[in-house]
Amino acid sequence: MNKTIETLLNHKTIRKYKNDSIPDNVLSRILEAGVRASTTGNMQVYSIIITKDRERRKELCKLQFNQKMVEEAPVSLTFCADFNRFNKWCKQRNAEPGYDNFLSFFTAAIDALLVAQNVCVAAESEGLGICYLGPTIYQADKLINFFDLPKGVIPVTNIVVGYPDEEPSQVDRLPMASVIHNEKYKDYSSEDIDSIYRYKESLPLTKELIEENQVDNLAQIFVYNRYKKEDNVHFSKVLLKVLKDQGFMNQD
Amino acid sequence: MNKTIETLLNHKTIRKYKNDSIPDNVLSRILEAGVRASTTGNMQVYSIIITKDRERRKELCKLQFNQKMVEEAPVSLTFCADFNRFNKWCKQRNAEPGYDNFLSFFTAAIDALLVAQNVCVAAESEGLGICYLGPTIYQADKLINFFDLPKGVIPVTNIVVGYPDEEPSQVDRLPMASVIHNEKYKDYSSEDIDSIYRYKESLPLTKELIEENQVDNLAQIFVYNRYKKEDNVHFSKVLLKVLKDQGFMNQD
Repeated sequence: MNKTIETLLNHKTIRKYKNDSIPDNVLSRILEAGVRASTTGNMQVYSIIITKDRERRKELCKLQFNQKMVEEAPVSLTFCADFNRFNKWCKQRNAEPGYDNFLSFFTAAIDALLVAQNVCVAAESEGLGICYLGPTIYQADKLINFFDLPKGVIPVTNIVVGYPDEEPSQVDRLPMASVIHNEKYKDYSSEDIDSIYRYKESLPLTKELIEENQVDNLAQIFVYNRYKKEDNVHFSKVLLKVLKDQGFMNQD
Repeated sequence: MNKTIETLLNHKTIRKYKNDSIPDNVLSRILEAGVRASTTGNMQVYSIIITKDRERRKELCKLQFNQKMVEEAPVSLTFCADFNRFNKWCKQRNAEPGYDNFLSFFTAAIDALLVAQNVCVAAESEGLGICYLGPTIYQADKLINFFDLPKGVIPVTNIVVGYPDEEPSQVDRLPMASVIHNEKYKDYSSEDIDSIYRYKESLPLTKELIEENQVDNLAQIFVYNRYKKEDNVHFSKVLLKVLKDQGFMNQD
């Protein structure tokens, strides 16, 4: 097995970090590896914002629902869908850009996410740990303010990076065959579903969580505790408003 | 420099492929490395569809705006945002899922894109070449039909994979400093824009393209030939309709 595959297979999300800062040359190298990711038409319609300042990390931590690693890790990287730079270039060259619509946002979001994942892989290959912050898209409106993002720019994900101060065991994944389809999508029977989730449901951690949360099963923890309908509906509205306010919903 | 960083820095999109098929164990390995990517709450809300069949590759090629490598490469992988499997599990466990909204779609799309990029890195580390197919999100409605995707499933990107039959030179990237911001977003002055795009505009290929397209500059090629406003508007509508039809726009 080659080293890169090994790095990918060994991925673990790190939630506790040492105080050690990341040397500038290491951070530069992982960012340079990041921007080599594929990008639509080589437009590079993304930006990366580095947060290192301790006070800013503290504030960002609050915006990221107080996930402590945002304050503790030495570096936080926010990946933004960004058509602002490209649009400015077009206008300056007497070319009227037509990138103020949903397709363009999604194109830029794809660009940003591929770079983010490359950066994660590069970071882990250098012995660093990473953690993705889910709340980034929930809090896009507040992050736009926090980072002074102009129209045409929307944060799509955020990672913290630093030297691991824990050695967690690797989490489970669903059986490979259950996420892969050959030629056509093979929908799941109720027997398939039981079999796909059997291992996850049998884990000691799952049993602890069910007891702790006083529910019947793991699915109920997701639906009623972790990712609730009312929150999803609320943050969907926020995100769609952000798309409009940042100038990405002009397709009517 | 470590091997993984080297692989990332050497990335080139491959558009010509040998006939050689990919051994099953190699394909399995890169997919296994793929699903180790971070996923929101370990929900794995994505699916991967493998297209190998020659007739299907031919049809898929047509749907991907006749980009020949879709027919020529031995394998095409379509990465889908997929809440169908997760929703079925929830319902079967007496937990009513609330994942029929825009936030949930975007969460699942992030999941799918991180896996896609991991697969690309793994593939390149094994000597394979890859090419992302942009039209996937333009043609989501037709691909849903092509792959028999049920509600809750939307294709977000597609790559072809195979052994390279060309050695293209690496394309340019904007100066690193122009896509990186420290602490806050530093907006671009007109001098910044000139300086950021100077190298790209000076390339011999750029000059050829301008002559070929009979326009004044490179920006006009993007705006008036490659990614036109009317197409972006049209495909934005298609994509938003797909989101609605696949059950991801219930947040009103």
